[in-house]
Amino acid sequence: MEPLTSAGHTLYFESGLVALKNLIESHQYSKVFVLTDEHTSEVCLPVFQSFLEDFQEFDLIETAAGEENKNIDFCIGIWKTLLDFEADRKSLMINLGGGVITDMGGFIASTYKRGIDFINVPTTLLSQVDASVGGKTGIDVDTVKNMVGTFTLPQMVFIETEFLKTLPPRELLSGFAEMIKHGLIADKAYYERLKTTDYLNPAAIDIYRSVEIKNEVVTIDPHEKNLRKILNFGHTIGHAVESYSLANDENPLTHGEAIAIGFVCEAALSIKNSTLTQPELKDISEYILSLYPKYHIRKESFDSLLELMKSDKKNEDGNILFSLLESTGKCTFNCRVATADILSSLEYYNSL
Amino acid sequence: MEPLTSAGHTLYFESGLVALKNLIESHQYSKVFVLTDEHTSEVCLPVFQSFLEDFQEFDLIETAAGEENKNIDFCIGIWKTLLDFEADRKSLMINLGGGVITDMGGFIASTYKRGIDFINVPTTLLSQVDASVGGKTGIDVDTVKNMVGTFTLPQMVFIETEFLKTLPPRELLSGFAEMIKHGLIADKAYYERLKTTDYLNPAAIDIYRSVEIKNEVVTIDPHEKNLRKILNFGHTIGHAVESYSLANDENPLTHGEAIAIGFVCEAALSIKNSTLTQPELKDISEYILSLYPKYHIRKESFDSLLELMKSDKKNEDGNILFSLLESTGKCTFNCRVATADILSSLEYYNSL
Ligand SMILES: NC(=O)c1ccc[n+]([C@@H]2O[C@H](COP(=O)([O-])OP(=O)(O)OC[C@H]3O[C@@H](n4cnc5c(N)ncnc54)[C@H](O)[C@@H]3O)[C@@H](O)[C@H]2O)c1
Ligand SMILES: NC(=O)c1ccc[n+]([C@@H]2O[C@H](COP(=O)([O-])OP(=O)(O)OC[C@H]3O[C@@H](n4cnc5c(N)ncnc54)[C@H](O)[C@@H]3O)[C@@H](O)[C@H]2O)c1
Ligand SMILES: [Zn+2]
Ligand SMILES: [Zn+2]
Repeated sequence: MEPLTSAGHTLYFESGLVALKNLIESHQYSKVFVLTDEHTSEVCLPVFQSFLEDFQEFDLIETAAGEENKNIDFCIGIWKTLLDFEADRKSLMINLGGGVITDMGGFIASTYKRGIDFINVPTTLLSQVDASVGGKTGIDVDTVKNMVGTFTLPQMVFIETEFLKTLPPRELLSGFAEMIKHGLIADKAYYERLKTTDYLNPAAIDIYRSVEIKNEVVTIDPHEKNLRKILNFGHTIGHAVESYSLANDENPLTHGEAIAIGFVCEAALSIKNSTLTQPELKDISEYILSLYPKYHIRKESFDSLLELMKSDKKNEDGNILFSLLESTGKCTFNCRVATADILSSLEYYNSL
Repeated sequence: MEPLTSAGHTLYFESGLVALKNLIESHQYSKVFVLTDEHTSEVCLPVFQSFLEDFQEFDLIETAAGEENKNIDFCIGIWKTLLDFEADRKSLMINLGGGVITDMGGFIASTYKRGIDFINVPTTLLSQVDASVGGKTGIDVDTVKNMVGTFTLPQMVFIETEFLKTLPPRELLSGFAEMIKHGLIADKAYYERLKTTDYLNPAAIDIYRSVEIKNEVVTIDPHEKNLRKILNFGHTIGHAVESYSLANDENPLTHGEAIAIGFVCEAALSIKNSTLTQPELKDISEYILSLYPKYHIRKESFDSLLELMKSDKKNEDGNILFSLLESTGKCTFNCRVATADILSSLEYYNSL
């Protein structure tokens, strides 16, 4: 597949990391570091090395897996490790893992000695279709997601479906939600195509289309001043539900499961506050419920959810702002919505 | 004095913060934060407010003073404070203080929610002539100076000599060393002029010239790939002596005192490894010793000093690289030097 150019760096698809080999050879990095988590060092690192003809000349830095470890303590530990390994400004960091690794590794690289080169090799569907493009790096502080980070582009990104073969089904389904989102906000035909797709075997061509859509949007608006906000469709309510679930449920929702709920709720909001039609809402709701487990949004959580939405990073001047669908495949942003409508949309989801 | 334009932002001199008032009025920031340390909140904040017609609409964040507090723990505390105060992406942070405050405040602002606007109002001579320009932000990790940071430009910088009136003489002398450096590396006439200047009353015009020199250099090479390295003249040895003194002396050297020692040693190195002449070295040594207290570089510290130089951020591939004088007013960079020469240069300083 042809590489895709994004704001000065290149995304390679199913290319077997050849460009990475060339970069390492030509660039004379003083040292190469590979950052993994405990899972990706086991299942992805061998694949990665085989792609690079048994590449060995790197130092491995392994962290614990999971969002709860995307925090400043791990950054401090890894900054110090880099120093212990004598990483200088001409060092290269390769982030091999899901969004936690590419986000945190990107933040660490973009700030270590005021910035060293880094390369992302996303190994989850979510990180391939979403975190792979746009230059956002970040970590959580306390429970606030991505409270600290930078906008910094990796040198290159490599997207290889080979890595997905070991990914658990629930993680595949989680990433698939972002693909559905790309269809909903920007490409109706793509959305219709996804409906006939098996999320357990995502095709490289669909991943490519998702990355292409996101790339178009972030190229126009890299710093999320306006258009980029459409990528938050489903996320205002979805994030709140996700945070609430994380704090209160024994088996919390994945990001994808939560934003899928967000799609339904915010599609419902789009009926009243934008131009989405009732049949479109019905279609979206049915498709989401056919794929994602039904969740019950507890009535006693509604106030907390509203509070969480208010503290969303994307708000300005304390107003909750939504990205809403004008139709299937078209999205608008900066929509103010009455609190009563938000609550009705939660009720609507529950009523399905 | 005319404002100076630096890579997209403007440095204002003796302008009374008028441009800041206009920016705050026109930009509709959702919130304004002023970051100070315990000293600058006392002696600089009233001056700052008087410049702004008793400006009151801000939240004050005060930290402890001193390099030892330019660390990640303070950053975490301030990131959380920003969150508690509901700082959103349209917030503005004004860093009012010396280099510790502008470096750390700049880092915090450049990473909070992936970056909010910030403005620097440097209140020490050192931060006015040096930290004010170039876009470096940073914090120390453990004892490693500026190990973590970003290159991010403030919206504006305001340089007002009024703030210097409360600055202790030793701090003035410390900042004055950077001015001498600017003369030594780029402008012999300026260096000669400084010799006739009273460091206790630095003139705005001299501060302006220093900022101008630094600005020219960093505009050509913002990311310190080559030319910018000349600004490290005196700093390879100076930083090592500074770190050693900090760890071992009861009353440690200031940054300026340490780099002044570095000027002498690296001028000595420039004789053998570049084209500086003996009379020029003599002139520099005499001028430095007439201003700065003589220090004894202990023989038993030499090994530690070499180790410290090796771990310098600016090195590549483990080699110690120096910026050396070709003549008074002209500097070259990336010079490799024999270890024996480094040791001789320390002996030379001691012999004076
Ligand atoms: N930067 C961005 O633009 C952006 C966009 C979306 C999401 N994100 C971030 O991404 C993170 C979520 O990403 P994620 O879902 O990839 O999380 P993740 O990195 O935690 O990965 C999920 C789990 O899958 C494991 N894993 C990864 N690759 C595997 C493989 N090939 N086989 C088997 N197991 C594998 C991981 O070890 C982890 O346990 C969040 O922190 C989110 O904020 C960032
Ligand atoms: N970003 C850059 O390019 C750059 C360049 C040079 C130095 N620096 C950094 O700057 C820092 C040193 O700067 P500094 O010397 O300004 O240190 P500083 O900020 O610690 O200030 C020195 C002392 O003076 C006090 N002070 C500040 N303004 C005052 C005033 N007007 N009156 C009375 N007291 C005042 C402070 O409270 C402090 O106690 C270091 O951390 C260094 O790494 C950065
Ligand atoms: Zn998402
Ligand atoms: Zn200095």
